[in-house]
Amino acid sequence: MYSVSVIDDIPEVRPGDDLVELIGSRAELADGDIVVVTSKIVSKSEGRFVAADDREQAISDETVRVVATRTTADGRTTRIVENRLGIVSAAAGVDASNTPDGTVLLLPVDPDGSARSICVGLRELSGVSVGVIISDTLGRAWRQGQLDVAIGAAGVHVFDDLRGTLDNSGKPMVVTQPCVADEIASAGDLVKGKTGGTPVAIVRGLGRFVGDLDLPGAATIVRPVDQDLFRTGSEEAYGDGYRDGFSEGQQEAVGL
Amino acid sequence: MYSVSVIDDIPEVRPGDDLVELIGSRAELADGDIVVVTSKIVSKSEGRFVAADDREQAISDETVRVVATRTTADGRTTRIVENRLGIVSAAAGVDASNTPDGTVLLLPVDPDGSARSICVGLRELSGVSVGVIISDTLGRAWRQGQLDVAIGAAGVHVFDDLRGTLDNSGKPMVVTQPCVADEIASAGDLVKGKTGGTPVAIVRGLGRFVGDLDLPGAATIVRPVDQDLFRTGSEEAYGDGYRDGFSEGQQEAVGL
Repeated sequence: MYSVSVIDDIPEVRPGDDLVELIGSRAELADGDIVVVTSKIVSKSEGRFVAADDREQAISDETVRVVATRTTADGRTTRIVENRLGIVSAAAGVDASNTPDGTVLLLPVDPDGSARSICVGLRELSGVSVGVIISDTLGRAWRQGQLDVAIGAAGVHVFDDLRGTLDNSGKPMVVTQPCVADEIASAGDLVKGKTGGTPVAIVRGLGRFVGDLDLPGAATIVRPVDQDLFRTGSEEAYGDGYRDGFSEGQQEAVGL
Repeated sequence: MYSVSVIDDIPEVRPGDDLVELIGSRAELADGDIVVVTSKIVSKSEGRFVAADDREQAISDETVRVVATRTTADGRTTRIVENRLGIVSAAAGVDASNTPDGTVLLLPVDPDGSARSICVGLRELSGVSVGVIISDTLGRAWRQGQLDVAIGAAGVHVFDDLRGTLDNSGKPMVVTQPCVADEIASAGDLVKGKTGGTPVAIVRGLGRFVGDLDLPGAATIVRPVDQDLFRTGSEEAYGDGYRDGFSEGQQEAVGL
């Protein structure tokens, strides 16, 4: 049994604000609590605003690689891109909601580092062992709608590693590795909501996932490139293949 | 604030068992509860065992379409496939853990229909309005590890539709549509675990997502084919394009 609640009196966060104080002074933290912090307030406290009249341009600036593009009948273009954290999403982490006009908000430079700072601070302030997850909202390839996932984590196991354990009938569970950090981020989203005002959730009763500060962070959730079967959209990959094939086919036909 | 707990004395489920009785007699359900049921026990109650010495063959039988294939250096092949429910996953929903030797377990024929039956039964038995989610475990394209998601749902909103609402700064939130059914399935997984024995979680305090029995089910979460940018793995799509391009290039070179 565990519970998920919000801290409901966190004021609008401004650059330079101390999140440890903002959270720690408003929550009676207990040993094993996991604090889920919306990336937006981490970005705001770190002053990650940039002037941008055009959100699309800001997305381009944050994009390391375009994975896939699609233009719908009504002329709206969806871009799936990889951002500098390696995260594949529709907006490169650029946030234009709940921000002042003419500005957008970028993701924290180092979300695992931010999570670690907050975790160290909250452990010192509260005197108990807590974990911290920084959440952001992502779409999925084959499912509609978005989920909150962990883009930063500290003091918490990001995977519940069952590889090698036996199931109830005595067979080894070879490949199951639940991403508990993402599941906890989603559990937090169910109370935090998206319209702002409640950017921090406290998950109480899952202390078995809380651990050392040097546990691997959320960066380890990102699938390495050499295991990514969907590195390029189907249409883009087909186009790349067609061009290469066409050129080789021409050369072969003329005996090169 | 909400809580997530398990029913911890559910016995091994056998074909023909009545899940409504198994769950309803062990849980004091409250108005607005959401009952998350692991698909495995739904399949078992529906007798979805098939004899299979070879799990790979069972996966092939359940596969409607191979999306991508990858063979690692150690010779292990990963197949990403679409199953008959339209769900893209690594094993087509074929489950060989916690099943008797020589058998595998297939997904329920109609998970939304199963959810509806359980929901109707639990509402009748308990006299309160509850929702039901049937969960299964899926991997993701660009993130490691798995999450529990909703493959069946009844009496519960699968999306928290924020399109058209305004954020705190008065701007419309145009495309945000959190998939709360998947988030609730994940929240349930954090207490249910994977090794069996606790296949049902009760989520209490999210009654705002509970609604009519005729709400759309979890089948509506699956992204329609015409919006799927990752219908084929990058390598497969490149290969398809190459073959088509090669043929066209040859023909063009000889003046056809």
